Order: sequence, then structure tokens, then C-alpha cells
Amino acid sequence: MKIEGPEAYIESLRKLERRIYVLGERVENPTDHPLIRPAINCVAETYNLGDEPEAEELLFVKSHLTGERVSRFTHIHQSTDDLVNKVLMQRLLGRRTSTCFQRCVGMDGFNALYSVTYECDQACGSEYHQRFKDYLRFVQEENVVVDGAMTDVKGDRSLRPADQADPDMFVRVVERQADGIVVRGAKAHQTGSLNSHEILVMPTTAMRENEGDYAVSFAVPADAEGITFILGRQPSDTRKMEGSPLDVGNPKYGSQEALIIFDDVFVPWERVFMCGEHEQSGKVVERFAAYHRQSYGGCKVGVGDVLIGAAQLASQYQGIDNVSHVRDKITEMVHLNETLFSCGIACSSRGEATPSGCYMVDMMLANVCKHNVTRFPFEISRLLQDIAGGMVVTMPSQKDFENPEVAPYLEKYLKGSADVPVMDRMKILKFIENMTMGCGAAAYLTESIHGAGSPQAQRIVIRRLADLDEKVKYAKRLADIE
Amino acid sequence: MKIEGPEAYIESLRKLERRIYVLGERVENPTDHPLIRPAINCVAETYNLGDEPEAEELLFVKSHLTGERVSRFTHIHQSTDDLVNKVLMQRLLGRRTSTCFQRCVGMDGFNALYSVTYECDQACGSEYHQRFKDYLRFVQEENVVVDGAMTDVKGDRSLRPADQADPDMFVRVVERQADGIVVRGAKAHQTGSLNSHEILVMPTTAMRENEGDYAVSFAVPADAEGITFILGRQPSDTRKMEGSPLDVGNPKYGSQEALIIFDDVFVPWERVFMCGEHEQSGKVVERFAAYHRQSYGGCKVGVGDVLIGAAQLASQYQGIDNVSHVRDKITEMVHLNETLFSCGIACSSRGEATPSGCYMVDMMLANVCKHNVTRFPFEISRLLQDIAGGMVVTMPSQKDFENPEVAPYLEKYLKGSADVPVMDRMKILKFIENMTMGCGAAAYLTESIHGAGSPQAQRIVIRRLADLDEKVKYAKRLADIE
Amino acid sequence: MKIEGPEAYIESLRKLERRIYVLGERVENPTDHPLIRPAINCVAETYNLGDEPEAEELLFVKSHLTGERVSRFTHIHQSTDDLVNKVLMQRLLGRRTSTCFQRCVGMDGFNALYSVTYECDQACGSEYHQRFKDYLRFVQEENVVVDGAMTDVKGDRSLRPADQADPDMFVRVVERQADGIVVRGAKAHQTGSLNSHEILVMPTTAMRENEGDYAVSFAVPADAEGITFILGRQPSDTRKMEGSPLDVGNPKYGSQEALIIFDDVFVPWERVFMCGEHEQSGKVVERFAAYHRQSYGGCKVGVGDVLIGAAQLASQYQGIDNVSHVRDKITEMVHLNETLFSCGIACSSRGEATPSGCYMVDMMLANVCKHNVTRFPFEISRLLQDIAGGMVVTMPSQKDFENPEVAPYLEKYLKGSADVPVMDRMKILKFIENMTMGCGAAAYLTESIHGAGSPQAQRIVIRRLADLDEKVKYAKRLADIE
Amino acid sequence: MKIEGPEAYIESLRKLERRIYVLGERVENPTDHPLIRPAINCVAETYNLGDEPEAEELLFVKSHLTGERVSRFTHIHQSTDDLVNKVLMQRLLGRRTSTCFQRCVGMDGFNALYSVTYECDQACGSEYHQRFKDYLRFVQEENVVVDGAMTDVKGDRSLRPADQADPDMFVRVVERQADGIVVRGAKAHQTGSLNSHEILVMPTTAMRENEGDYAVSFAVPADAEGITFILGRQPSDTRKMEGSPLDVGNPKYGSQEALIIFDDVFVPWERVFMCGEHEQSGKVVERFAAYHRQSYGGCKVGVGDVLIGAAQLASQYQGIDNVSHVRDKITEMVHLNETLFSCGIACSSRGEATPSGCYMVDMMLANVCKHNVTRFPFEISRLLQDIAGGMVVTMPSQKDFENPEVAPYLEKYLKGSADVPVMDRMKILKFIENMTMGCGAAAYLTESIHGAGSPQAQRIVIRRLADLDEKVKYAKRLADIE
Repeated sequence: MKIEGPEAYIESLRKLERRIYVLGERVENPTDHPLIRPAINCVAETYNLGDEPEAEELLFVKSHLTGERVSRFTHIHQSTDDLVNKVLMQRLLGRRTSTCFQRCVGMDGFNALYSVTYECDQACGSEYHQRFKDYLRFVQEENVVVDGAMTDVKGDRSLRPADQADPDMFVRVVERQADGIVVRGAKAHQTGSLNSHEILVMPTTAMRENEGDYAVSFAVPADAEGITFILGRQPSDTRKMEGSPLDVGNPKYGSQEALIIFDDVFVPWERVFMCGEHEQSGKVVERFAAYHRQSYGGCKVGVGDVLIGAAQLASQYQGIDNVSHVRDKITEMVHLNETLFSCGIACSSRGEATPSGCYMVDMMLANVCKHNVTRFPFEISRLLQDIAGGMVVTMPSQKDFENPEVAPYLEKYLKGSADVPVMDRMKILKFIENMTMGCGAAAYLTESIHGAGSPQAQRIVIRRLADLDEKVKYAKRLADIE
Repeated sequence: MKIEGPEAYIESLRKLERRIYVLGERVENPTDHPLIRPAINCVAETYNLGDEPEAEELLFVKSHLTGERVSRFTHIHQSTDDLVNKVLMQRLLGRRTSTCFQRCVGMDGFNALYSVTYECDQACGSEYHQRFKDYLRFVQEENVVVDGAMTDVKGDRSLRPADQADPDMFVRVVERQADGIVVRGAKAHQTGSLNSHEILVMPTTAMRENEGDYAVSFAVPADAEGITFILGRQPSDTRKMEGSPLDVGNPKYGSQEALIIFDDVFVPWERVFMCGEHEQSGKVVERFAAYHRQSYGGCKVGVGDVLIGAAQLASQYQGIDNVSHVRDKITEMVHLNETLFSCGIACSSRGEATPSGCYMVDMMLANVCKHNVTRFPFEISRLLQDIAGGMVVTMPSQKDFENPEVAPYLEKYLKGSADVPVMDRMKILKFIENMTMGCGAAAYLTESIHGAGSPQAQRIVIRRLADLDEKVKYAKRLADIE
Repeated sequence: MKIEGPEAYIESLRKLERRIYVLGERVENPTDHPLIRPAINCVAETYNLGDEPEAEELLFVKSHLTGERVSRFTHIHQSTDDLVNKVLMQRLLGRRTSTCFQRCVGMDGFNALYSVTYECDQACGSEYHQRFKDYLRFVQEENVVVDGAMTDVKGDRSLRPADQADPDMFVRVVERQADGIVVRGAKAHQTGSLNSHEILVMPTTAMRENEGDYAVSFAVPADAEGITFILGRQPSDTRKMEGSPLDVGNPKYGSQEALIIFDDVFVPWERVFMCGEHEQSGKVVERFAAYHRQSYGGCKVGVGDVLIGAAQLASQYQGIDNVSHVRDKITEMVHLNETLFSCGIACSSRGEATPSGCYMVDMMLANVCKHNVTRFPFEISRLLQDIAGGMVVTMPSQKDFENPEVAPYLEKYLKGSADVPVMDRMKILKFIENMTMGCGAAAYLTESIHGAGSPQAQRIVIRRLADLDEKVKYAKRLADIE
Repeated sequence: MKIEGPEAYIESLRKLERRIYVLGERVENPTDHPLIRPAINCVAETYNLGDEPEAEELLFVKSHLTGERVSRFTHIHQSTDDLVNKVLMQRLLGRRTSTCFQRCVGMDGFNALYSVTYECDQACGSEYHQRFKDYLRFVQEENVVVDGAMTDVKGDRSLRPADQADPDMFVRVVERQADGIVVRGAKAHQTGSLNSHEILVMPTTAMRENEGDYAVSFAVPADAEGITFILGRQPSDTRKMEGSPLDVGNPKYGSQEALIIFDDVFVPWERVFMCGEHEQSGKVVERFAAYHRQSYGGCKVGVGDVLIGAAQLASQYQGIDNVSHVRDKITEMVHLNETLFSCGIACSSRGEATPSGCYMVDMMLANVCKHNVTRFPFEISRLLQDIAGGMVVTMPSQKDFENPEVAPYLEKYLKGSADVPVMDRMKILKFIENMTMGCGAAAYLTESIHGAGSPQAQRIVIRRLADLDEKVKYAKRLADIE
């Protein structure tokens, strides 16, 4: 592995020459930009052994390609144990960061493409699988971060890719050359893209015969010619630029999404993993989505652990931790959080090998997992706000605590339990603000709805896999029909 | 009425000489401060006839004291029709502003104190009621905004007011003088306090015999000597200071909460409405809370109307308004919103006259109303985010749209339905961000939990009023027991 | 009023010569049949002043036709107070019986037809309104029970009435004669029909131009030639025939539904209230449904009162009434029940006069009311079972308690709190069984879903009345669009 | 294995000479009693290979004691695969029977006692483990059905076992003799006890030092001297005695619970597995409960499969299977059901070996599993009733269909889709009645709340295992506290 640890990772980003826009301005040094750095800190944790005894086993694993120890984020799942360990790793990193650590999209993209390129070669006589393995070996050896980029901007949702007024609403091949292809389009909501060395593009939906140019998958360096990144805004984002860590709530970590523009970007053939095989495109989507829906049964559970801790701490700081309704609400938070974890574990332990050897999660249960994630974090968040109290949205700013005319009033009047420093109480309440309605909420709430596919996407899969005909047979037999 | 309309109201605020701190700095011109002005614009709507035909009847009413046309916000409810009209007025203003318009606390305070001062005089031989009527006449004639201030900072929640380490955790009388009293303490979460001419203080809980100094109610001008205001932060608050109305989402309106410090403030006797009658204090809390819990069945329903409209609009802009699951989710939003409205109406139409003539809401149903408000807005908000899509938290900033290097990409790739301008789509999505996780969420979500008392406060009342003994009798009779 | 009280009512039923089948056999004396009598006892309560001081005002009212005191069940609502009193009456009778008291369908039918016949005459030049008033005067004077019969059997739900394989799937006119019409078809789920003197038929859906024969409304005596009743089964129904009141749970009261067959029944013109005016048929359905959806905000709330009492009593009998989670669950039951009540009150107090003078409920809120009734009773029932314990479905029979070999064991081992007779504990648990999974559940649960229209029927109305265009305008104005 | 198949099992029951009371009468031939036989048919399925290819692997397994093929119901879990296969077996049998198949209590008792006797011997120097293995070998070899009997009648729930007015409210040792012990008391809610050859008694709660006589575990034959069984009633139970399979709904299968009285029953020492070791008693309860809470993630999911099939079938029979809201409701039923399955799988795959070698489920997740089972089946049931329509509780009886005067009406008017026989439609609707409010509901609803411990029991464990201190640390680290 070339990138050996968190610091090396951060340094490695400095070498990329990317075109990045933040709040309307081109950023020359994104690595130290206060809106981006917390997200980089998050990804850096994926390189960090930390102090948890189980971290080595969870974060690192033996490559089936090289036999070397590699980051699990670059690994192809070889067993259901690998699938389970992925979820455990995600819970661990969710606990460390309390937000999205952004490297799962690459991992989930690798595993989806690994099996589909294999099956595509079998079906179409193509040679994508070896090419993809070569790329993966590079990723494992260099230990780079790869943005698995799927979601197109989509234009009018009621129209197919080929029927849009503007043909570029889905990323497509605009030119085939001897040594590669030229692509155009944009990928939206690209979590962690500003922290990635590489971008791995996949189609966003099952393409039809007349949509072959949209059935394209490839990898490019993040600083390839023609690529532009535009950072999205999050609630309370600019607090990170105010020099007031208290007001940020989660001062060290954050997530981040960007819009990536591909303005006629050249991709050499050795980095092209699908190009026209429209009938294979649906499988990439389905598998990437399933892996990523599994992921939410780990990462969001880790965040949930922190929120439960925050609820408990806030209740202690305010002298209500032994009140029965508070105890009951925290129990409910735990119950909901562990239900999500159960779903993450279940779809993993019920996984099965694909013909390529790569293990796939149970697709029904992975969709069920994510579908619960579109619901329970909202209730957990509501309960957390209930316990924390209204102060969450009425607290003064850090600068008020620094103003000698006002600070004494705040020290006196914002005191909770006598033995708790006022500032500690403020810190946990600001953290709760961040998680329920600030930057953290973008990751814990909105992303929980829409990441890896909006709720309806899961319902479609759940219904498709429900095997209603079989279930009708059970009912008929018992009711003595026919 | 002295203050005749919105502009006059705004000008009237300029005359107040208050001590206000915002983000750590004393503000000399709060009226034009970008963090405060949207909240002022909200309150100004309470002076604005607007273009709704029903507004005259809802916003204005004949005073029972003077027979003159006064603002309903200064009126004592004379009938259940008045109670119902209050809710209708609140729904109307919620629709106009999509946030808290901040003047209800005063109205609810007037009505609570009107009946309690009457009953206190009957029970204790005091003379508060006439005094209070004189004050109310002043309020009606001048048409000033009054902050009904109840919530104390409370310190350690497991201790009574008299048992706190610092005796000032609840506002109290520190000195009784010939011409008035001196008070000390702080009121937290004071909605609209920076937009008020007057502050009307009430006790925050039922006081006991040894807590007479805490059983105090009075009114003071907002610029009285010894008063300091410290503005609380809200999610994404400083976007209002960036000069980017797009990113604010709801550019014109907002709400606001401040911490008010009473540092030995003098109050003349003619503005004192309770002073030591501890056994009357609980009634003030109970009645103010009930009126204010009723209020949520109006104002939040108005906000809900806007959110339903935003969901419908976002779905149209993205070409999904005829998809069955989207239609069904919007129907659910309407159902939940109208359930809240039903609760607001029911507790009003079941109101009854108090001995003072002032009408009181049905206390059970008012608590049921608010208790539903602690739940449904969260589900409405979740459904809204579901329909809006992930773009809500990944949109670029207004400044990106203004940068000529990036703007063309955004115009091209963020296009939804072909006939909808990109900027319109962005506007509604930013509005949804504001309402579900920005400033608007502070009012629509957190305040819906904690405003007018946290959920458990309602449960205690609901249980107390449930008359379980009577219900046991019904069950016994039917089951033939005894 | 001819029928003056409960006993007179029961006697009056004996005079009817009806064709009734119960469990496969024709019943000669339905009035004393153990499966029917508890339902008759329920209806008898509508004639019973009882011991509640408010009963006189709720159960009886001055007729606007005659000025005489008549049963509210035969009254045309003259004000919103009448609408509110209807709900209060229903809550009172729900408390008395803990089931459906079956006379509301007639009342709701009267009120729907009163205004529609008026408007039909205006639109079509017909003379139904006077005819209907004559009929109503007869009903009021005789104080008879009338089954408002709407739901057709419907055949294949995906086909219109005129497109069914069998044209009789919706009640229709098969012959028009000089002195009347001949009708054929069946009405399903006819609550209280075996306790009624008269049947008032209405169309079940909005008919189209080619469906004029289905747009028919009329009244006939329950013992008219050609009518057959077939009683439906309910869970645990035959316990009523075992001579074991304990096992019945609610030994005195019950509800009942029958299928009514109209096998070429003759109706004289003076009892025909619609015959071919297809464009008026939808209004009858809509209004009857709205009135009946309002009704659920009264009657089921009364049942809820009893269930809350049963929960409290069962918890006392088992020594757990002061446990915090039990207290909290009972509070939740109260909260849900009062929310339903709020909806019943709100749609009533927001009612408005129709051109006929008859008051109509607020249609949006009446649908919202019923839609909540399709949900909350299930949760109330679940909480009740939670508190009651598993004994609800594992209790021995009354006959075991009567067997001297076994009774001592039961007396010893089924003892709960020391001061509570075993049999009292058994009685309340059997009552809970009845209400959550026995006969009572048919009325409290299934009927709460499907009575007055299944959930989707309400959603369609709610969406139709939501005025989304107006709400879109609010959102646009605030987001500064256009 | 001595009992080789379903028929042999049924015959084996005839040899037992038991004292059984049903509806107040002693039953001489319980095996053919219509109230008991459906439950016997259920247990017989545990002996039936059936036609599912996976049944052999799920129903049978190699004994770790003898190496022989034994029923999984008599097996000690040797791995997490065993734990998972247990859940899969339960889902399979749930599908076959659509009710409780009653043999899990024995299996869960074996596994709990296996590890606790081992640990008890280590701690106390007792010799229970070998004794228990001998007993287990007998069970495996004879392949008998064993009732795992835990729940005592408990008397006043607010009092400890030793503090009850009657000391027999918990099963206890009343005499210690040279060759055995004499026990007295009763076990309530004994699922499957009338179908069992043996009764395996365990304590129902953690006993204290002064409660040693209550810390007792033993096995006795079901026909031991001094044992009396009294069958509990279930909703609609006597329909099984009417000779109308249609009205039963699920005509072949059922469950059953009895009260077992131990009136000074002698137990030889070789069948005593705990006697006075009070500090070990809590572990038995905790482990039995955890295994049994896992079980619900299998069996109820199998029932759920049938209910989903019933919903789909009913919708087809009525022509509404392609309506969007019906499709959506069925999708929701699947989602909820698979969530329960995920919980069953997760607690199994996260199981771990105890010192005895027996595998224990993950206790947190097993409790989370059951806790969801106390909620979701109620919503599944509500959705099923929604889709089925009100006919579920208004259908005529089978006897009406057999009466030639009435049958033609029913054939004509109860017809749904033209190509579906009326009787098929009736069968599925009666089945749905059974499952949502008849005998089937006792197992699917009430048992889902209270079986293996009431909801609060799970919440207590969930909170205890939540490790809030650790979670507080995560929150503190991120909020930079300390």
C-alpha cells in the first residue's frame, strides 16, 4: 500500500490538480478549506487503525488478488464473513465520525462491477473483467480513494434517458476513438468526491437497446482534463468558516457532496468497464444499490450509537436521566437503532457467491434494510430533540461566550446540573443541533432517505422479490382452495 | 390604535433603546439587522390586512373593553367563535410566513392573566384584575407587541426553584419597594422578544408556599433599565447575512428566539399582576399553556399548507406529480395537517367561559392538539424531503449561479422539467431545505416539540384530565362487575 | 312518538313478519334469538333516557317539521350545535354499549337525502323533497328504526355497475309501474338491519348516464314482500348461544350485520326518492359518507372510553396500575381517543347549511376524522392487550368455573390482587377478549376500517378537497417564484 | 428415533393417560377432540418431511450426543448455522400451519438448561448437567414432544414470589424426599401442552436467597400423578365443533394453550435439573426468553408469508390486485415481515458459544427481534383487513350455503370476479377472519405481544444491554468534551 495512514492520505490529496468550486469561487487549496477539511478528516479515519481492538480485522483484509493486506474499502467480498465485517467496520467508523465517511461508494462500486464485468464477458465475449481486476489491483496497491459515481442529474423524471430534451442528462459516450472514449454529462450528489483520487462511473438505470451510449462504466483520475466539481451546500455549512468550533457542533468531522461535470472527458480503453452492453447496465445498478443499501445498516447505526450517547449525556447534564419517560425514549432509540443493525447483519449473513466468486448480499433483505433507514433515523432524531430540549435552537453563539459583557450572564443562566461546566452542556446541545438540523442532518436524515436510492426504489425491489405467487399457494393450501 | 400598519410597526421598533447582543456583538440598529429583520417582517404581517377577504374578520375584532376595533392579538376571547377565529387567523398567518409570527405568546398571556387575576382577586382580595385591564387597554390602544415570557432557565431540572444552587434560576422578586418591585432572573427561548415593545412576565411552574418570591407576574417596556437580550442561533442563520436570498430559502420571513436577562429590573406596582400569591401561579401556567397549545393547531397547520404546496410544486418541477406514490404521500401530508387543524378547532369550539368572562379552551383537547403537533410535523417534513429528493442538501450556492465559469453547467445540468426555469426549481428546493433543516425547521420542528411545553408536559395533563375512575365504571357496568 | 321507550321498541319488532336466516335456518322469533337480542338491546338504548343528565338534550330534540320532541336519530340537523350534539350523543351511547348501536345509518341517510332531494327538485323539476319530508314525518312520529342501506355487493370491483356480468350486482329498478317500481339486488353489511322497521335504500356510487336504473333511492318496510335477511357471522358469535355470559365478555350488548336480498320488491311512488337522476346519485353517496364518517368520531370514541376503563381496571386487578409503562400506555390510549373525538367535533363545528336548510359537516374534516378511525383503534386495541396480558386468550371457560373438580384450582391459581374476586378479574379479561378479537372487535376494528367507506375512499376525498393549487401559490409566493 | 412420523406421533398421544378438562368437562379422548386435534396436526408437521426440498436439512440434524439424525426440536445448537437453521425451520412450519406449531418451547428450554446446568455445576459443584444430558438423550431417541413450561400464574404482580398471600403462585418444592421432590403450583398459557409427552418445568423469574424453593427445574411425563390440564378458550374456538370447516377458516391447523396444575407431583431426582440454586435461576429465564424471542423471528414470519398470500389472493378474487394502493399495502406487509425475519436472522448469525458448547443467540438482537414482533403483526393484520374488505365480519355461515332456500342468493350475490368460484372467495375471507380476529389471531396477535415475555420485558433487557456509558464516550469525544 502506498498511502499508509491518515496523514499520508491528506498529503496525497494536495497533489491532485482539480477544478473545484465552492460558494461561487474556484478553490486552489481544497485540502485546507474549512468546508472540505472535515470531510477529508472523515475519510482519513478509514486509514486510521485507531484504538479499537477490532479495528485491524475490520479495516484491513487480505486481498484475494495479491494476498497482501489491503484496506477493506478496496476489497472484493470473499465470504459472508466479509459482508458482515463490512457492516461492523461501517458501524465503527460511524461511531468515530458521526457522519458519512464517504468511502463506501467506491467499495460498493468495486464489488458490483467485479461480478457484472465477469458475467458480461461470459454473455457478450467482452474482456472487461481482467481490465477491471487490473484497475482494482492498482487501487489496492496505491490505496487510493475512489468515488463510485452513479446518480445522473436525470432532467425530467418522467422521461427516459434517450428521450430527454438535452441528451446529456445522463452521462454518455459522445465519441469512440482508437485509444479510448470521450464522455459527457454530470453526476449529482457525489458524496466524498472532493476527497477522492479517482472517479468510478457507473450507469444510473437499466438502459434499453437505443440507449447504448448511456450504458457506460469507466474510471478516471479526479484531476482528468474536463472535470469540474461544484460543492453542494449543507445546512449551517458556513459555521465551519467562522472559527467557532462550538457552533459547528461536530467540529472535526463532516460529509460533503459535489456535482461533477464531465465536459468531454477522455477515458483510455483500459479504464473502460462497460461500453454499450445495455442489457448489463441494470445489473450494475441493482447490485451497487443492494450493497449500498446494506451499508446503511452499518454506518447509520454507528451514528445512531453516538446520538443515543448524546441523548443520555444531555439528559444527565440537565438532571433528567432518571426520569421514566426519558429512560423509555432512550430505550426506544436503542431499539430502533439495533433493528437497523439487525437488517444490516441479516442481508450480509444471508449473502451468496456470484459466479465471479464475489459475494452478493441478500437483495430482498438489503432493500428492507435501507427502507427502514428511510424511517427510523427520523424518529431517533425526533426523540433526541425531545430529550435535549428547545435550547438546541435557541443557544447563543460561541462569540457570545467570548464577549465579556455577555459571558457572565451565560455562565450564570445556562447552567444545568451544578457539577457540569456550562460549556460542556453547550457542546452537547450544539452537537445535537448539528446532527438533527445542521450539517450532520444532511448525512443522517436526508441521505438516509435518498442515499442508495429513494424509498420508492426499495419498494419496487421488495415487491419484485416478494414471490407473491408462492405466498398465494401457502394461503390456498391452508384455506383448502382448489 | 396608534400603530396602524406594518410600516408603522417597523418604525416604532426603532424608537426602543434596547441592549441586544447578536453573535457576540452589541447591535445598535436591530431593526435592519439581517438576522432580525425577517422576524420583524413576520410580526409586521399581524398588522397587515393583506389580500385575503377573511383577514379583516380574523385579524381585527371589537374590544370588549373599549368597543373599538383592535388587533385580535390584544383581544380577550369573548366566545368560542373568538377562540375559533384565533385558530383561523393563525392558519392564515402561518400560510403567509411559513414560520412563527411570534405575537401569539402575548395574546395567550393576556388571556391567561385576565381570568387568573380575576380569580386571584376573588380568592386573595388583591386588586390585580383592574390593574391588568388598565394595562390591556394601553396595549390595545397603542397596538404594541408584547412578549409573553414564561420559560425560566430552570438550572437543574431535578430541583425545585427554591432548591437550586443559584436562587436566580427562576425569575424572582429580590426587593419590594414602596413604588414597585425589583426582579432578577432570565427567561429563555423568548420567541419574538426582539420584535416586542413590552415584556409580560409570568411564572413558569406552580410555586409552593416557600417559593412566593417566584410567584411573580409583571409587564415592563422592552428597553427598561437592566434588561439584556442575547439572540439565539438557528440552523443556517448566517445565510441571511450573505446577500444570497436563494440560499436562505424563505428570504423574507423568519422567526427568532432570545435569552432575556433581568438584572435587577424595577417594575412599578401598576404593572405588577401577581406578587407572592403562590397558589395562583399554577393556574397561570396551565391556562397560558393550554391557550398556546391550542395555537399550534392553527399556526403550524398554516405552515403545513405551505409545505404541502412546496411538495406539490417540487413534484411538478421534476415531472413526478402524477406518480401514484407521490400523490399518496401528498395525500398523507394533507391528512396529517388537517388532523392537527381538527384538534385546534375542537379545543376552541368546546371552550367555555371562565368567571371573568374570558373564554378558555377545552384543556384536555388543547393538550391533545399540541401533543399531536409534537409528532406529525416530523412525518410531514420527512415526506416532503422524500418527494423533494436529495438535491435539497447537495445544491450549489447562489454564488455558483452567479459565477460565469460555473453557471452554464448549472443551468444545463440542474434542469428538471423542460418548461420550468432552473432557478424556480432551485428556489423551491432551497425553500424545502430551509423548512426541514434550516431556520424554518427551528420553528416547524423543534418548536413543535418544545414550544408551549415539551411532550411529557402534555401527557401529564392528558392523564390528569382523563377521568379514569369514570371510565372504569363504564367498563365495570358492561362486564357486569359488582 | 308512538314507540316511547326501550321495551316498547323491543315489542314493536315482534310485529314484523320478516324472512330472516341465521346460521342456515329460518328464524321465527328473531327478537329473542340470542345472536340478535344483544343487538336489539343496543338499539333500545337509543330510546333510553338512562341516568346521564345530558341524555335528554342529546337523545331528543325539537323537530323542525312538527315542533315536537323527537329522537335525534330521526332529526334533520338545523345548526352546527345539532351536528356537535350528534357526536356527543354517539359518544354517550358508545360508552353505554361498547359496540355499534346501529341506528346512525338511518339518521345519516335522512340528512343526506333531505338536502339532495331538495337540490334534485331544483335541478330536475322532480318532487322528491316533499315526498321525503312526508316520509320523515312518519318516521319521527312513529319513532321507528330505519336502516340506511347503501353498500351494494358490487361483484367485480374493477367493473362499473353497468358492466358487471350479472346486472343485479347493484340494486336497480327492474320495472316501472303506474303505482310504483320493482327493485332487485342486494345490500351487504347492513348494520342493524334486523333491528329496523324500515329500510331506506340509497345508491352506492355516482352513477353514469347509462346507469339510470341504478340511481334509485326508496324506503320499504322491513317485512315487505320479497325481502330476505341473512345474518353475517362474527368472531365468537355462538358464545351467545352457550348460556355462558362470562365467555361472551360483553353479555348484554352486541352489533350485527346482515345481507339483505331484494327479490323483485315493489315500492310505491310515495316512497321513491330518486329514480333515474344519475347525476344526483354521487351527492347522496358523498353526503351520507361524510355524515357517517363524522359519526365515527363519536361512537368509536365512546367505545374507546370503555376500553381505557378496561385497561385501567385490568391493571388494577393485576397490581400494575402504578407501573410507569402501564400509566404511559393508558395515557397514549387517552390521547389517541381524544384525537378521534377532536376530529368528530371539528367537522361538526365547521359544518355549514345546505340550500335545504339541513346542516352539512365539513367534508374534508369528516373524511380526516374517519381516516384516523381506520388507524387509532388498532393501536388502542394493541395497547389494551399489552396491558391485559396473555390471559386474554388462554382463560378457561365459564363452564370450567362451574365444574367442582376444576373450579377450586381456578379460584386458587387465577387470583390476581388479593382483594379482587377471581371472577371479576375473569370478567374484565373476557370483556377485553370480546373487544379485541371477539364480536366486539368486528365493530371496533373491522368496522372502523370499512364502515362508511374503506380507507382509500377517504384518501380520494381528502386529496380532491385539498386545493393543492392554492397551496402551491403559498409556496411560490414565499420562495419568490414568478 | 422411536416416533418416526406424523401418524406415529398422533398415535403415541393416545397412550397418555392424562387428566384434561375442556369447556368444563373431562375429556377421555383428547386426540380426537375437535378443539385439540388441529393443534395436534400442527405439532405433527414437525415430524413431517413434507415436500419442501430444504425440509430435511431444516427439520433434522445430527445429534452431538449420539451422532444420530434427530429432530432439530430436540437438538442443542452447535453453531450459528444451527441457530439460523432453527429460524428457517420455523418460517417453513409457520407457512405450513399459519399458526403456532407449539414445539419450540421444548427446544428453547433444552438449550437454555443445557448451558445453565453446565455453568451451575461449575459454580455450585452440582451434577445437573450429566443428568440433563441423559434426559435429552432420552428425548432425542424417543423423539417425544416436550412442553417447556416457564410462566407461573404469578398472583399479584406487584409482589415477589415469596411475598404472595398464597405461596403456591409460583411453582415450588413442597417436600424433599430421598428419591425425589414433591412440587406444587401451576403454569399458565402452556402452549402445546396437550400435545406433549413430557413437561419440562423452569422457574419464571430470577429468584432471591429466600426463594430457593422456587428455584426449581425438572421434567415429568404429562400423565404423571397430580397433573391436571385445563384448556383455555380462544376466539371462535367452538366453530371447530360445528362441522363447518368453511367457518373455521384454517380448518386443519390451530394452536392451543392450557393451564397446568401441579397438585403435589412427585419428581425423581434424575429428572431434577435445579433445586434451590436461586442465583442460577435468572440465567434460565434470560436464556430461555432470548431463544424464544429469536423463535418469533421465524415462526411469525412464516405466518406473515401466508397472510401476504391471503391478501394477494383476496385482492385478485375481488378484482383489485392491480390497484396502486393495494399493491402498495401488500409491499408494506412484505417489508414489515422481512424486517422481522432480518431480526430473527441477525440474532442467530451473531450468536456465540457458551462454555457448555451450546450456542447462544445475541441477546440484545433477540430482544429487539421479539420487540418488533409485538408491533408489526398488528399492522400487517390491519393492512390485511383493509385489503380483504368488511365482508370478513359479515359473511354468512357455511350452513347458509347449505340451505337450499338461501344458497342461490349467496351464490348470486357474493360473487366477486367472474372467474372465481364464490366458495373460494368465501374460504379466503373466512381464513382472514380466523387469522385477524379468530383462533389464528390468538397466536398471531396476542401471542406476538405476550409470548416469550411482554413488551416491557424486552425493553428492560434492551436498556440493560445498551451500554450507554460507552455511547456517551463516543458523543463526548466528538463534541470535544473533557
